[in-house]
Amino acid sequence: MTHSAYENLCERFREIDKLEHAITYLNWDQMVMMPPKGSDSRSGSIAELAGLCHAKLTAPEVEAWLAEAEGAGDNELSIREMKRVWRNANCLPAELVKSQIVAGSKCEMGWRTQRAANDWQGFLKNFKPVVEISRREATLRQQASGAKTPYEAMLALHCHGDSEALIDSVFKKLRAVLPGLLQRVVEEQGPLKVAQQAEYPIENQISLNKEMLATLGFDFEAGRLDQSMHPFSTGSAGDSRITTRYEADTFLDSLAGTAHEVGHASYESMLPENFKGLPIGESRNMCIHESQSLLFEKQIFCSKAFMHFLTEKIHHHLPAAHYMGASDLWEIGTRVAPGKIRVEADEVTYLLHVMLRYEIESVLINGEIEPEDIPELWNEKMMSYLGIDTTGDYTNGCMQDIHWTDGAFGYFPSYTIGAINAAQIFAKIKAEHTDWQDRFSKGDVKFVRDWLSNQIWSKGCELESQELMQSATGSVTQAESLIEHLEARYLRGEY
Amino acid sequence: MTHSAYENLCERFREIDKLEHAITYLNWDQMVMMPPKGSDSRSGSIAELAGLCHAKLTAPEVEAWLAEAEGAGDNELSIREMKRVWRNANCLPAELVKSQIVAGSKCEMGWRTQRAANDWQGFLKNFKPVVEISRREATLRQQASGAKTPYEAMLALHCHGDSEALIDSVFKKLRAVLPGLLQRVVEEQGPLKVAQQAEYPIENQISLNKEMLATLGFDFEAGRLDQSMHPFSTGSAGDSRITTRYEADTFLDSLAGTAHEVGHASYESMLPENFKGLPIGESRNMCIHESQSLLFEKQIFCSKAFMHFLTEKIHHHLPAAHYMGASDLWEIGTRVAPGKIRVEADEVTYLLHVMLRYEIESVLINGEIEPEDIPELWNEKMMSYLGIDTTGDYTNGCMQDIHWTDGAFGYFPSYTIGAINAAQIFAKIKAEHTDWQDRFSKGDVKFVRDWLSNQIWSKGCELESQELMQSATGSVTQAESLIEHLEARYLRGEY
Repeated sequence: MTHSAYENLCERFREIDKLEHAITYLNWDQMVMMPPKGSDSRSGSIAELAGLCHAKLTAPEVEAWLAEAEGAGDNELSIREMKRVWRNANCLPAELVKSQIVAGSKCEMGWRTQRAANDWQGFLKNFKPVVEISRREATLRQQASGAKTPYEAMLALHCHGDSEALIDSVFKKLRAVLPGLLQRVVEEQGPLKVAQQAEYPIENQISLNKEMLATLGFDFEAGRLDQSMHPFSTGSAGDSRITTRYEADTFLDSLAGTAHEVGHASYESMLPENFKGLPIGESRNMCIHESQSLLFEKQIFCSKAFMHFLTEKIHHHLPAAHYMGASDLWEIGTRVAPGKIRVEADEVTYLLHVMLRYEIESVLINGEIEPEDIPELWNEKMMSYLGIDTTGDYTNGCMQDIHWTDGAFGYFPSYTIGAINAAQIFAKIKAEHTDWQDRFSKGDVKFVRDWLSNQIWSKGCELESQELMQSATGSVTQAESLIEHLEARYLRGEY
Repeated sequence: MTHSAYENLCERFREIDKLEHAITYLNWDQMVMMPPKGSDSRSGSIAELAGLCHAKLTAPEVEAWLAEAEGAGDNELSIREMKRVWRNANCLPAELVKSQIVAGSKCEMGWRTQRAANDWQGFLKNFKPVVEISRREATLRQQASGAKTPYEAMLALHCHGDSEALIDSVFKKLRAVLPGLLQRVVEEQGPLKVAQQAEYPIENQISLNKEMLATLGFDFEAGRLDQSMHPFSTGSAGDSRITTRYEADTFLDSLAGTAHEVGHASYESMLPENFKGLPIGESRNMCIHESQSLLFEKQIFCSKAFMHFLTEKIHHHLPAAHYMGASDLWEIGTRVAPGKIRVEADEVTYLLHVMLRYEIESVLINGEIEPEDIPELWNEKMMSYLGIDTTGDYTNGCMQDIHWTDGAFGYFPSYTIGAINAAQIFAKIKAEHTDWQDRFSKGDVKFVRDWLSNQIWSKGCELESQELMQSATGSVTQAESLIEHLEARYLRGEY
């Protein structure tokens, strides 16, 4: 029995998917369960599996199958996505990948102590080779993909389909509006009436988070909620793994984190089953992925109506929170307070943090600035966008994030494009369900899940990202969608 | 740079070891963490990994490397063990392995309901093909290994190095002594003074088990204790995973189970590091493995001296257990009460359960009886050894165990040979440390761990199992070691 080239490709990608399943859950275990001394053996096993996946993907027969399958004319979209995955894996020489891992891991390891020690010069020494290698990577990826600039080729790893031109035009609009909007919100918001000032036992927070997850449509027969240092979501259909992080003196942060992760998990759980294991059956890109998590976090969880619903549950699980009503909780949850740290930032400030990083990393990778220029640029932009002085404070300035340490350039914009996509998608859902606030206040989000499942989740990679936005919302990604949302929530206090 | 055949073999076995690492922790996750709907994807991933391991082990170059490495004359013991592993994987045709998995999984699935329904005829229909395939397997393994009988070839999978002749002679001695010993113990033991009759909260049992684990030398930086339906131990050096099972109305069972599993885990954790990833660096066989778990459970945990130490901890974690003193707890923990079920049996009765199974499975695989003959044989032996009538009760008779359903013949004897080895090893340790009871009563077991580490754990597979027993205890496995232990504990009440 002979197989067609396309059938051979499907079989190969499904084999790789089964090995990636192992990597996924070994990684989860490492973050959530593994005792510290297990680390060496675990790294060895994951590296072996990753090497096998890479070898299976870049074996010579795959290129031949791709050429033959393209010639056959069927399954065009599926082959397009296979080719994208294959090209991403195939366009870098092994020597570069290896030196990147070495340089990145050295830089990240050093960063862990250098950041705390505010040691920019020490960091710079390890960071320069990382940038150097990433520029070579970007150039090679540009050659293979036909991207307009080296940075756009890096962007495509995370935001495939969203061009540098589109992202640039979006940030241009945000730049004109956000700093002023932020200032106005800060000036106009009154002082908080109450604060989270009791002890909220972790075990009660866990049961509260679990109840909220069930309300948001999470299936505990097909997933788990655990704890980890940094909240994340991973897994696949049938087995989602969400983590969050609890602190005894605040419960809104863990709830917001859990709501965020259930958006990621829902997308991964509801991808098209008939394409399981194939690139076309995967999530579209990180701008769409982040839109799903931000829709659950910012559009659902942070809304007045959902907070109204949740307040009763909060009071039930956390009797010590009784003194706070729904409007108090909403005010705390949507409080705007510009600060130096991205991961602690509110919904408005966060966008400016990302804009600053985007502006710096794009010119860095395109070779217009050098690593040593970063602090000055950072300080200027922090002052200009947020009115905050970070001069000399590398710890809480340009050394605060892990992303750049191992060369993950091109990732940051997905946060902001995701926030825009979320606002734009949710505006469409609201227009089709004008009773949305009434439904949220009863804990009903099924209509949102159904809409997302039809319009986004079930599409996998059949559509390119902007085709997907067009088909779902009637328009490509538009900065105005987010600006309208921010004004409605933060200036007009509508929801 | 060319590698020697032996270096190539080492590299290949280390690659396989890294994939087996993944299988190990994916299996653990499946038993302990995975939500039910994750099951299909998980089976697919594990099957893919197992297939890769098998392909890497049976690839033609491995046979060539083995021949060349043997010719070179170095690393004799390491190559001997590589060849054993290779032969076990290589001697069965793929068709047989596949039909065995299908037949075994059908039989096991059916058994889950047939056992409860006491449906022997229904079970028999699925069980006959399993036996048929296992007989073919046994014959092929016999041809490849030169074992004296087909059953001995199956034994060698679990008890490699312990011949059928040795095991037969051991069981012959036990058969002459144990039924009478059991009867005498039952007649002479007085009624229990007190029983476990309160509620012992699970979370307190967990902290008690963790404290006992630490006392027994378990390193929580290199391992975890969790819960699962059936207690087990898995993992590797640096990352041991032990599970136990708690019930609110008894705490001694979970403690005994945990003590048992820490024996397994300690052996796996302390194997020779310089042979990591190679067959010679693995545990010797299941008769030695089980001796380590039974030494921790029966020789340490069940001793009067250790129970004396533990009583204070029990009272601390479980205030409801205050009414029981050390001697009460020892009496409960060493109570002898013959019954139908192996997994619920006491130390003496258990041995007779295993003997019965050994006697049946050996003649079954050697073709001297047929599957339909099992119930009658079972009933006869239960009456003769335990004085218990199981006629017509398949549920609690010959259908109670999972082992035979998927063809795991040759495993049962390792429980009893393990118990003998444990008694024999511990007799040696006691002779060298006459103050052992004094040390146990203070919670000091380090001298036992040090001894085992030197004499057993650090040896890996350098010695064959009976060479290991000879070097560690001065003698091969002798039934008398166990009989002496049972008489000392159960007739003379010595420890």
